[in-house]
Amino acid sequence: MHVLMVCYGRPADPAAFDAHYGSNHRPLVEKVPGLASFAARYCESLDASAPPYYLIAELGFASREALDAALTSHEGQTAAADIANFADGGVTMFVAYD
Amino acid sequence: MHVLMVCYGRPADPAAFDAHYGSNHRPLVEKVPGLASFAARYCESLDASAPPYYLIAELGFASREALDAALTSHEGQTAAADIANFADGGVTMFVAYD
Repeated sequence: MHVLMVCYGRPADPAAFDAHYGSNHRPLVEKVPGLASFAARYCESLDASAPPYYLIAELGFASREALDAALTSHEGQTAAADIANFADGGVTMFVAYD
Repeated sequence: MHVLMVCYGRPADPAAFDAHYGSNHRPLVEKVPGLASFAARYCESLDASAPPYYLIAELGFASREALDAALTSHEGQTAAADIANFADGGVTMFVAYD
């Protein structure tokens, strides 16, 4: 599995982020071709400190080739372009594979 | 699911890290009570840059209470103490939940 890790920094307005993510962004992500698994999880620290991210989405693909094809697809480009509409806390993306 | 995210920075000697992780650390983690799922994945960037982490382990538990109980268990303390034996690139831990 090759997993696109999408790590969102804490937004200025978490409620607005959550609303946009659930109603607009997640449906766009679910249209991406080749998506084999999807999870989005909120983050919290083990203690009272701030966690490094606000939300992490994990998009699983069968191979790095399938992941790259998804990113360059029309649906992938549409989902990527939508990030600027709500992710004002920044986003870190990388690939995790086993 | 409450997932303990264990994000390892790049070690000085990746081959030694891999050997210790597979032969020593992973068996200790798999003994932790309440562990419902486990994945360890290497990280790579989308481009030619360095990824933010070398390896990410995801330890899933049924609840935050189960995760906290696992961390304070003898097996959890043993696994945590072992991190100092191989993770010379640093480690970032937090909880991701849905």
